Amino acid sequence: MSSKPIAGPEIERLIQLLARLPGLGPRSARRAALHLIKKKEQLLVPLAAAAKEAADKVRVCSDCGNVDTADPCSICTDPRRDPGTIIVVEDVSDLWALERAAAMSCRYHVLGGTLSPLDGVGPEDLNIAGLVDRVASSGGAIKEIIIAVNATVEGQTTAHYLADQLADTGVKVSRLAHGVPVGGELDYLDEGTLAAALQRRSDF
Amino acid sequence: MSSKPIAGPEIERLIQLLARLPGLGPRSARRAALHLIKKKEQLLVPLAAAAKEAADKVRVCSDCGNVDTADPCSICTDPRRDPGTIIVVEDVSDLWALERAAAMSCRYHVLGGTLSPLDGVGPEDLNIAGLVDRVASSGGAIKEIIIAVNATVEGQTTAHYLADQLADTGVKVSRLAHGVPVGGELDYLDEGTLAAALQRRSDF
Repeated sequence: MSSKPIAGPEIERLIQLLARLPGLGPRSARRAALHLIKKKEQLLVPLAAAAKEAADKVRVCSDCGNVDTADPCSICTDPRRDPGTIIVVEDVSDLWALERAAAMSCRYHVLGGTLSPLDGVGPEDLNIAGLVDRVASSGGAIKEIIIAVNATVEGQTTAHYLADQLADTGVKVSRLAHGVPVGGELDYLDEGTLAAALQRRSDF
Repeated sequence: MSSKPIAGPEIERLIQLLARLPGLGPRSARRAALHLIKKKEQLLVPLAAAAKEAADKVRVCSDCGNVDTADPCSICTDPRRDPGTIIVVEDVSDLWALERAAAMSCRYHVLGGTLSPLDGVGPEDLNIAGLVDRVASSGGAIKEIIIAVNATVEGQTTAHYLADQLADTGVKVSRLAHGVPVGGELDYLDEGTLAAALQRRSDF
């Protein structure tokens, strides 16, 4: 960002805020701001209104930790979803990714991160007690917990901790399969993925 | 963009509008929207306010075509700038780029594009008559017009047309130097740039 303001303070402020979005740097934020200004009626005015409305209405679901404009969120209150299966994810973005895949119609639980002792993130910083409570207070209605955390060291540590915490509740705990991504080329995959894909091979 | 809405309609609307910004696709727009929602007080609320304020206040300068929150813009009314030199640019983004370089303290004229017969862009679609008027009505106060259009075919065509139009006014017309970009590596430059850099070499 140039130290010298180029345009009026209102435009500079817009550029500075856009530059804080993931995926936009100072240069692309300027380009985005100019695009917004040029398309004032089609884009800038609606964006201002949409941002204000989202800011006014967005809530964190007290059941699952999802963000929505209702609490409980529209997923928790959807009667067509199976209430017996809960997919545990690190973040709302993972929930959105799984919803896009549309492979299962169930409910979610957002942890809000992973255990990371080096960064000072312990179990009390995550929404883990909420999950155990949710399972315990369901009176057996929750049958399966699918742990869908990232396949990183922190993710797997969190998965093991979660499985331990859930052991007493008697609920079935499962996790995502490892293997070759659909459309993936073997040549570009790491050894761990290839080994897992071979080990868990299925009949043709 | 998924056809099935994942979050509330207010959040979906925000994602859709963000996806129309240059540099953000559907996926990065979702990430940006989630980032905004998570940092509601620090980012989403200020962005809504900044976008609204910019939409309310932004104007196109009737003298030079720059966008600002004042008309005439803050560059045209800045008394410390040399009113005798005008840099002609295609777009406001080029004006911003030259201002960042901070190499000259003068005024600008934004054409709003380049001549492009194939796309149906003729002289009457650009702010060319405004520039000729501005020079003619200055009573000799404007001494030099620096044509700083892109070094593309359309840009150069526009530059030649502009120089023709300005010939009768008696103003000095110049253009940007061609050469090796600062920090550039010869190996990666095209032949045209290298030929220009050799031809216009300077004493060491």
